[in-house]
Amino acid sequence: MKFSISKSVFLKSLTSVGRASSNHSPLPILSGIKVTVDHQGITLLASNTNITIQEIIDVSEASQLSVAETGSVVLESRYLIEAVRKLDSTLVNVEIIDGALTRISGNNAEYEINGIKGDQFPAIDLTKPDIFFTLSAYKLKEIIKQTAFACSQSEDRPIFTGVNFRADQKTLECVATDSYRLAKKTIELDNPLTFNITVPATNLNEVEKTIDDNNDVGIALSTKYIQFYVGKTLIQSRLLDGMFPDVNRLIPTDFAYELSVDTTDFIAALDRSSFLKNDGYWTVRLETSSELITIRSRSQEIGSSHEVISPIDYKGGSLKITFSGRYMIEALRSFRADVVKILFVAEMQAFILVNPNDESVVQLVLPVRTFD
Amino acid sequence: MKFSISKSVFLKSLTSVGRASSNHSPLPILSGIKVTVDHQGITLLASNTNITIQEIIDVSEASQLSVAETGSVVLESRYLIEAVRKLDSTLVNVEIIDGALTRISGNNAEYEINGIKGDQFPAIDLTKPDIFFTLSAYKLKEIIKQTAFACSQSEDRPIFTGVNFRADQKTLECVATDSYRLAKKTIELDNPLTFNITVPATNLNEVEKTIDDNNDVGIALSTKYIQFYVGKTLIQSRLLDGMFPDVNRLIPTDFAYELSVDTTDFIAALDRSSFLKNDGYWTVRLETSSELITIRSRSQEIGSSHEVISPIDYKGGSLKITFSGRYMIEALRSFRADVVKILFVAEMQAFILVNPNDESVVQLVLPVRTFD
Repeated sequence: MKFSISKSVFLKSLTSVGRASSNHSPLPILSGIKVTVDHQGITLLASNTNITIQEIIDVSEASQLSVAETGSVVLESRYLIEAVRKLDSTLVNVEIIDGALTRISGNNAEYEINGIKGDQFPAIDLTKPDIFFTLSAYKLKEIIKQTAFACSQSEDRPIFTGVNFRADQKTLECVATDSYRLAKKTIELDNPLTFNITVPATNLNEVEKTIDDNNDVGIALSTKYIQFYVGKTLIQSRLLDGMFPDVNRLIPTDFAYELSVDTTDFIAALDRSSFLKNDGYWTVRLETSSELITIRSRSQEIGSSHEVISPIDYKGGSLKITFSGRYMIEALRSFRADVVKILFVAEMQAFILVNPNDESVVQLVLPVRTFD
Repeated sequence: MKFSISKSVFLKSLTSVGRASSNHSPLPILSGIKVTVDHQGITLLASNTNITIQEIIDVSEASQLSVAETGSVVLESRYLIEAVRKLDSTLVNVEIIDGALTRISGNNAEYEINGIKGDQFPAIDLTKPDIFFTLSAYKLKEIIKQTAFACSQSEDRPIFTGVNFRADQKTLECVATDSYRLAKKTIELDNPLTFNITVPATNLNEVEKTIDDNNDVGIALSTKYIQFYVGKTLIQSRLLDGMFPDVNRLIPTDFAYELSVDTTDFIAALDRSSFLKNDGYWTVRLETSSELITIRSRSQEIGSSHEVISPIDYKGGSLKITFSGRYMIEALRSFRADVVKILFVAEMQAFILVNPNDESVVQLVLPVRTFD
């Protein structure tokens, strides 16, 4: 194996693929990136078995890739990236010099990095499944940003650490919940499809980081895995086992109170009390009368805060409801809208947040029981 | 106690003083800032017994300070700072409303923060000692930046966690060492003085952060503590007990090899191998002949690097010497000079770094023994 390539092109792809390598895997080889070179280009591959990223760099003017000898090698991801990043030239020369010992050189600087032979890397099935559709990068980013944050951080119920994607005809519902709050995004597909899968939120966040342009993303899925095709990059994620509960019946539809707020102002007002925590948990109490809206926080240890806010609009009578400040702020932020409408049923009932100008997203938050 | 003050002025002073408060102190009150108000101004005080910071805000146009009622209270540093930072106005109103419960309010937002009565705060002796001199902020910053990094991180020999200041007549020597390297800065004083004290490096780094202007800094010291007067701020540090060894005899004066390097290029060349560590320790081997200078690093696990560098000048014959890459880079950086001269005695002897245009700083590094 012997080739030379543009340092910036190589580094960008290595960094992207390297995110799938793991320093904590029981298989040491999975902390590496497999570099495979043929006369068409280079294929970079990394996998921690949970997520796999493959990227192809073609021979082209932009990549300045020139292949002298084909072959493959696995190099520890962080050292390979460090070596390439620090090299003193715009062109990087890579060459296997002895077994899997690989020379990486620039102008004066030269590394010899210990590698593992390419054929030692576990075979990963990257077959493209039959179910396939495309989404714009923007839409896919929006789905991930508006749902994945609401997933559970705890492994108590593993299925809740992922976002559920359920397609029925041309409707795709994307739902995340940690059982105290829920985020739901609904979009229309171009063609009718039927599937019901749950994708780990951490992997979706990696996908979100990779798609940085306005191109379409191809999505292929089976009952075993999901693939995202982003330009020359393929990201494959495992799916979570288990049945995701049907949450639609949990979302209330009749409301007695309607509060419209300026998102930025309301977040700022809430955030002012974010340090008033009890055992690390920050709750906010909202009190409405027909004229005034007050928000209060209280920490036994630290003290209290209160603020009278000016809503854009309020319909309904007197209501007192307490909720997690963090959940409320995260739900508000997810809309990226100037105005958000908060709809309440009753004091101890789940309430929802919606964007008056975009019905595709519903955020639901359960109130917190208090004793005052 | 009741006053109002410019939010930005109050916040800046609270942040500065708050650096002396401690969340880990056995005395909970030391996690607070003592706010004392009289008709001249506000005095803010915090101390973790190791370092004490006091700052005075006068009644002035800039501070917009207006005192309605004198008094004092101690408020938890991080909550006080959070509350003031997040307030929704440019003017902050502060008022004790019940015992030590303190109201902090802006426009609509209002906090009530639990405090402790001001007289509960431990009395701290801030008497100004007799030995007093002034340094320009620039010179004091330079002393700290060029020495403190070389102090020991380990408490094995506590005296080595500080910078030794030894004045004899008009010469002030500032020395730091961790016993594997040494930094020495010599400056001239305006007036003859005699003292020999050692100041914890961590406290000096706090001083360095506080002096951000071009004003003179007043320095007062006794055998118990040292004080830095920076504008309206007083920083008082305890001293380290014990005798700092005389290190001047350790610094070699006759050299067989002289290597002049471009600081930036040489640091970049060294840094290229910074990930080639053995048990977390990164060593670099320098090999010279009369024509070529080569630097090499080797890690059993990762691999190796080598690079031929072009020195600005080299005098001396063939030499092979191994040293800590981090120590070398930190010593080189301390000069903030374009060219640094490295002077060697022999392969297993301490070597020194100097700035050919400024003799005030000497950096010494001990080589590392290797077996190849």
